[in-house]
Parts: sequence; C-alpha cells; structure tokens
Amino acid sequence: MPEQITLYTSETCPWAQKTRIALAEAKPFGAKWTEFEVDLKNKPDFYAKTVNPASKVPAITYGGPAVPPDQPSPESIKIAESAVLVEFIADLFPQSNLLPQDPVLRAKIRFFIDVATTKFVPGWFQFTFKGASPDALYAAAEQVQELLDPEGPWFAGEQFTIADVSIAPFIERLCVNLQNDVVANPGEGSKVFKELSEAPRFARFAKYARAILGRPSVSGTTPHVSPIVLINIGLTLY
Amino acid sequence: MPEQITLYTSETCPWAQKTRIALAEAKPFGAKWTEFEVDLKNKPDFYAKTVNPASKVPAITYGGPAVPPDQPSPESIKIAESAVLVEFIADLFPQSNLLPQDPVLRAKIRFFIDVATTKFVPGWFQFTFKGASPDALYAAAEQVQELLDPEGPWFAGEQFTIADVSIAPFIERLCVNLQNDVVANPGEGSKVFKELSEAPRFARFAKYARAILGRPSVSGTTPHVSPIVLINIGLTLY
Ligand SMILES: N[C@@H](CCC(=O)N[C@@H](CS)C(=O)NCC(=O)O)C(=O)O
Ligand SMILES: N[C@@H](CCC(=O)N[C@@H](CS)C(=O)NCC(=O)O)C(=O)O
Repeated sequence: MPEQITLYTSETCPWAQKTRIALAEAKPFGAKWTEFEVDLKNKPDFYAKTVNPASKVPAITYGGPAVPPDQPSPESIKIAESAVLVEFIADLFPQSNLLPQDPVLRAKIRFFIDVATTKFVPGWFQFTFKGASPDALYAAAEQVQELLDPEGPWFAGEQFTIADVSIAPFIERLCVNLQNDVVANPGEGSKVFKELSEAPRFARFAKYARAILGRPSVSGTTPHVSPIVLINIGLTLY
Repeated sequence: MPEQITLYTSETCPWAQKTRIALAEAKPFGAKWTEFEVDLKNKPDFYAKTVNPASKVPAITYGGPAVPPDQPSPESIKIAESAVLVEFIADLFPQSNLLPQDPVLRAKIRFFIDVATTKFVPGWFQFTFKGASPDALYAAAEQVQELLDPEGPWFAGEQFTIADVSIAPFIERLCVNLQNDVVANPGEGSKVFKELSEAPRFARFAKYARAILGRPSVSGTTPHVSPIVLINIGLTLY
C-alpha cells in the first residue's frame, strides 16, 4: 500500500502537468494525493529549504506523517524531476499499466520519451517562444508519428502509458498557442497549425494529438489561462 | 529467458561503455551478448540503414534469428540511447539487482542519473574539452557526493546499480585526462586533479571515484587509448 503523496505543482507548468496526468491515470488503481500550488513568481520560503533545493516544480514528498503541505516532515522522502516522478508513479501503481512489464515495450516507451524530451520539446519551445523556423518541430512531429503504434490510439496501442503522459502537456500547449496564433512570430502559428492538422504527411500525428487532447487526465489538468499568459510564463520560467 | 543481444559499440565512447558495464554486471545472471565495434570515423553503410537511424553508438538488436552483426535481421528489435539501454538490461536481468525493486530507491537512482547526465557530464565536458572554469564541475561533484550513500561503497550502499553504471565512464575519463593534465587548458588539469582527489571538501567524491575505477566491469571496459586520443575523439564526435 503506497504511503502519503504530496505533489508540489503549478497550474501552468507542463512538467508538473506530466505528474498530474500520471496521478490522475493511477487514481482508479488507488492513487491518493494532496496538491500544493506553488506560486512560481513568489515561492514560499519553505519550498527550496525543505522540499526541492532546485526550487522547481514538480516535486513530491512521499511517506512520513500526515502534515500540512507547507510544513513538510523531515521524515518524508523528497523527489524531484518530472521524468523521475512519472516512473515513480508507474512503479507505485503497477496495476495502472502506465509502464507495462515487458522489457522490450518498456524500452520502446523510454525511447519515445527520449525523443519527446530531446526533439519535440525543443522544437515546440524554439518555434513558439523564440521564433525559430518550424523545421525542427516538423522533423520532431514526423519522428514522433513514426514511432506510434499504427492502430493507436496511444503510443503503445490500446494501453495509455508514460509515453503518452510525457508528451501530452507539450502537444496540448503547442495546439493552444498555434490555434490562437499566439507565438513569437504572429501569422506563423496559424500556418503551422494548418500544416500539422491538415497536411497528409502529418495525418498520424494529428490523429494522435486529437486523442491526447481528448483524454480526461489531460483535459482535466489543462491550465485555465490564456495562450498569452502561457507565452509569458514560458519566457520567464523555463 | 532473454533472447539474443548484439551490442553495437565503440571502444572510446563513454555512452557505449555504460551499456558494456551494465552487460558485464549482468553476466553472472545469464547475460550473453555479441559485440560489434563500429568505426565511428568510417561507419559501415548498414549501420544507419538497419540498426540506428541516428547513426550513433550504442545500439542493441534484440531477438530475431542468429545472424552476423553486419547483417542484422529485420526481425530483431532495434534499440538506441544509452539511458534506455541501461534500463533495458536491468529489466532483462532483474536478478542482477542493477535496478532494485523498491520504488523509492528506484526514484533515488533515477534522480542521481539525472544529476550525472545534466550536471556532471556537462561539467566534465566543458572543463576538459572547452577550457571552461572548473566551477560547474566542482558544483556537480559536490551534488554527486551529497547524494551518495554515506557508507558506500556505491551510490545505493552495498549494491552496485545503474546509478553507478551511468556515471562511471565519465568519472573514469575525467580522472585519466586530469591525471595526465591533457585538458583544453594545460596546467589546469593537474590543479583540478589535486583538488578533487585531496581536498577535504571532496573526500567522499574521491573515495567514490576510486571505488568506481576499481570495479572490474569498469576497469575491464576502459578504452586502451591515450588521453590525447580521448580529447580528439571527444572534440569531433560528441
Ligand atoms: N527538468 C524539470 C523542469 C521543471 C521546470 O522547469 N519547472 C519550472 C516551471 S514550468 C519551474 O519550476 N521554474 C521555477 C524556477 O526555475 O525558478 C522537470 O522535468 O521537472
Ligand atoms: N545520447 C546518446 C549519445 C551517444 C553518442 O554521442 N555517441 C557518439 C560516440 S561517443 C557517436 O556515436 N557519435 C557518432 C556520430 O554522432 O556520428 C546516448 O546516450 O546513447
């Protein structure tokens, strides 16, 4: 039986959203947790001192006595880094099948997460925030779709896994900013949106993106802020 | 029973060495594999076409029929990225305990690997190859030693795990280049070597580094080339 989980998060942080999606997926399998919203512009003193010395969200305290989240116990384990936390949640709730047992499938899932992290996230970031050409984003979307199970709907077929968890917040933010044309180079966002959602060469990616946006754990953890706010936060906090 | 494993590697590549260390550690638990040396300066045509489209080592083919390594079967699974491969080897050989079952310990191991990858490796690289100040390297060595089990000898205590696997090639290369003062700024290497190996503030790190260098899976996979060759390879291939 897993012990107490307190998640330190921030509504607008895509890395924190990964952990919220993973926990939401693990909820039918027994996951219970407390969320504490960290104001990233005005972080409470206790946070870096007692939870995450890197002073970033997400982080989790695990175990120890029941305490208010702003008074973390020295007895709980403190864990940071979204990729580590997502694997941790999958390990705590194996029945969720967020990370199935087959070693080959696990390796494929982890390779997909590596592509999402080292190709898709920078492609999204550089285009949306820095006004880079969309070429790296297109190349990443192509690499992503080539790795997807041909039937879908998810990376690994019928089973939603940490592969999907790990790319979901970035697909979602990309879509919001493109669709509203709120990007570093206005005008370019709508063009790229049309290309990614309508061009035959991105058909599999577009279908996957729609499935991701419709997953309750994803739509239920989407930030309630405008795409302009997302851009401003991204420019100051990532 | 795991299927056939062919490892595509290169003697001087530290990322490939991670997989060789992991396999050597898994050998007493049944790991059998074939190694194929990829000449990175003159890569064989089949490699990018049929094994790893990114054209980097390490990569593994897993399963499928027994074939010569330079004629990989379309039926084998192809997996790349050292971090993915190291977890794969741990998953294939659970008795090796390279990644113990306890979810909290797994998370701590993965967090350590994150620090090794995002702090220690860049600290080593920038100092050795680019002539940067040693400050980032010192900060990384301090962060590494704070995470180590106080008793040791390994990250997680008595058990050698993928935490140790993942930092070992970089500690080893750092030591070789510092000790021989073969770094971007000659003179600085010897100074940093003295500091890291003798200063009381790095005592725990120095002890850990010595243990790592003495581990047979590490010393047995060390490249047989001079530190000058290592520098030149690093400057052209990473
Ligand atoms: N590598 C981290 C990235 C987390 C991150 O960058 N979080 C941002 C918010 S989206 C943050 O906490 N920034 C606050 C700061 O750096 O002070 C992870 O994957 O968890
Ligand atoms: N992220 C990769 C890095 C592997 C890597 O950079 N390998 C180098 C040799 S040390 C390589 O194959 N370079 C050849 C090339 O890029 O053409 C991993 O962890 O496996």
